[in-house]
Amino acid sequence: MINWTDRYAQRTARVTGSTLREILKLTLQADVISFSGGLPAPELFPVERFRQAADLVLSAQGAQALQYSPTEGYSPLRALVAGYLGRPEIDEGNVLITTGSQQATELIGRLLLDPGDQVLVESPTYLGALQAFGVYRPRFVIVPDDEDGLIVEGLEQALEAGPKFLYLLPNFQNPSGTTLPLERREKLVALSDERGLPIVEDDPYSQLRYEGDHIPPLIVLDAERNGAVGRSYAGGVLYHSTFSKLLAPGLRIGWVVAPAAVIQRLAALKQGVDLHTSTLAQMIAYEVARGGFLEEHAELLRTSYHRRRDVMLEAMEAHFPAEASWTRPAGGLFILVTLPAGVNAREVLVESLKQMVAFVPGEPFFPDGGGENTMRLNFSNAKPDRIEEGIKRLGAILKTFCRAAA
Amino acid sequence: MINWTDRYAQRTARVTGSTLREILKLTLQADVISFSGGLPAPELFPVERFRQAADLVLSAQGAQALQYSPTEGYSPLRALVAGYLGRPEIDEGNVLITTGSQQATELIGRLLLDPGDQVLVESPTYLGALQAFGVYRPRFVIVPDDEDGLIVEGLEQALEAGPKFLYLLPNFQNPSGTTLPLERREKLVALSDERGLPIVEDDPYSQLRYEGDHIPPLIVLDAERNGAVGRSYAGGVLYHSTFSKLLAPGLRIGWVVAPAAVIQRLAALKQGVDLHTSTLAQMIAYEVARGGFLEEHAELLRTSYHRRRDVMLEAMEAHFPAEASWTRPAGGLFILVTLPAGVNAREVLVESLKQMVAFVPGEPFFPDGGGENTMRLNFSNAKPDRIEEGIKRLGAILKTFCRAAA
Repeated sequence: MINWTDRYAQRTARVTGSTLREILKLTLQADVISFSGGLPAPELFPVERFRQAADLVLSAQGAQALQYSPTEGYSPLRALVAGYLGRPEIDEGNVLITTGSQQATELIGRLLLDPGDQVLVESPTYLGALQAFGVYRPRFVIVPDDEDGLIVEGLEQALEAGPKFLYLLPNFQNPSGTTLPLERREKLVALSDERGLPIVEDDPYSQLRYEGDHIPPLIVLDAERNGAVGRSYAGGVLYHSTFSKLLAPGLRIGWVVAPAAVIQRLAALKQGVDLHTSTLAQMIAYEVARGGFLEEHAELLRTSYHRRRDVMLEAMEAHFPAEASWTRPAGGLFILVTLPAGVNAREVLVESLKQMVAFVPGEPFFPDGGGENTMRLNFSNAKPDRIEEGIKRLGAILKTFCRAAA
Repeated sequence: MINWTDRYAQRTARVTGSTLREILKLTLQADVISFSGGLPAPELFPVERFRQAADLVLSAQGAQALQYSPTEGYSPLRALVAGYLGRPEIDEGNVLITTGSQQATELIGRLLLDPGDQVLVESPTYLGALQAFGVYRPRFVIVPDDEDGLIVEGLEQALEAGPKFLYLLPNFQNPSGTTLPLERREKLVALSDERGLPIVEDDPYSQLRYEGDHIPPLIVLDAERNGAVGRSYAGGVLYHSTFSKLLAPGLRIGWVVAPAAVIQRLAALKQGVDLHTSTLAQMIAYEVARGGFLEEHAELLRTSYHRRRDVMLEAMEAHFPAEASWTRPAGGLFILVTLPAGVNAREVLVESLKQMVAFVPGEPFFPDGGGENTMRLNFSNAKPDRIEEGIKRLGAILKTFCRAAA
């Protein structure tokens, strides 16, 4: 008879399955209004295009789609996603296809982190990255920020200790919604270059901008800064993105863009974790995305999610208590709500689920603790009338909590 | 400017990308006769059934197939693969769907291994497992074996040191081809139970048996031994298998079967590495495998691979030098060749690739070093006439090497 619990490795001690995952399971099962996970609107999935793409792939290239394939990824797909960055220094050799963006984060942690290494992060920041890096037991060091994101000058002190890298989401940060302005991006890239600070740039949402102008990713600015004709990108940014928000998360297809030598090391590690990403899923994704479809579909999503964001913000104005405050992000999928100190979002969630409304408490997004009085609301998954209804129910609950705390 | 090499974590020092992967890339590109990877015969893929399954899934359940899904896996698929073991104690709750069998191995290492932990292994053993476990820096301890696999009595001494687990492939071992007899399996399961030795059972090939009778997996014997009506499996075996050999490796779908509490811990870890396995790939795999198709297709594969094994063995008799010896496995995908001491299989490979024949040198499968004079030959991928031609070419090269070494 084995007592399994006694056998688990030390790294697993703090891994218990996230709040996010447990709530996600609930929302998939029941008739709940979900403001929880970053789930795309299911009615907007381009299902018919997927059906045609699967048919084409399996009719014309079936044996290839079902066979083992190179760890780096399906070559036409690598070239396609390299092209999204629009820089001559960046091509297929700079791309590793991953089993979703979560695997990109995990592989970067696996490549770079020894126990005790310092990782610079914003607070709050994406829970999934804290989980993926956390297994390798680094020390998270919080960098100063404001409503425009990271304050570059504030990095000086943190740099003294020789951090392994800085992790950030420059566009519509999850969960805080901030977007790093161009000027700060340029300063940050210069600092990275001059001081040897590697940057891990997590960019799932850049195409989901509802107002203002697109700002180039850090890796593009870095490539411009150091680019030379005919030279492959060899800078300081490891960039990753995904098809999860623009096409379909059920594919599990993401990618890393990085110097070719780093891509080769990441591929060697990926071989040990899953050999390669599903050939079939990669070939279908390529057929769906190609020929400008991704860009066309992104336009449809922007229109729809823009409206949902506005519906949610208006409903919050109408129904939330005056003591609550919240972000107004220019893009992405989430609004972060701050409740009065003393109101615990986990307790709110218990009541909220009774009334069939789900959200994610903000606390696990804070690497240094705190945030018990915050909640993250997703506005992409539910339809506008459901958003109104859910916010109305949530507002009534919040008013009760705020009165009790006053 | 970042010097990336200086930034890599210690665990990556010995990860350089395996011989296997580099050779696989080569064989996918060129007109090579491949005896290297464990690639299924591409002309036997049930492409049309896959096409119909994809069409059905995307027509009837498109939005579900493209959305996020629970980390544990697609529920009907979990139930289907639980049923393959045919034990009432084992159901959906004992199954985690993984991104291929490689991820099953990686997650088990992640769950159980602290640096310096002992892992009992056969020598040689599956390279991919040595890679996956190796990242967690255990110490591999070789257990004694013979032509019937592991010698159970030989474990006594190794048990003194409190190993974390025993890893083995009881059926048509990769690369040695041995199959553990029923009597040894029963002894091993009893020992595991009495002495608290966890067993990781890797079973990708059990349906690919070309002679003799099926022998139950260790987890089935363990469930029988400890089973009680209405009780879920809670024994000492973590079993894993895959659709890669029976349906299509391009899906990247494998599974772990284990006590439900262990499955929950593995799922919590999997969430951090890729959230979940492709929903689309899981739903298509389920539609393909269901209704007895897997069993029917396995029969087709057995007939074909049986013939290929025999063609290869006959061609080896005819063309290989008298100094070489090799295994005659009752199933699986591989023959292991032993050359005279002093003949280096890597050097043979260099010559062999010039003549467009690929194989895998045996050395990386030996956790304790050695095996430089061994080579692993796969017989499932090439057609019979190509097998004959490839073995003929290889035989001529081997004769030259053996003469030079004599």
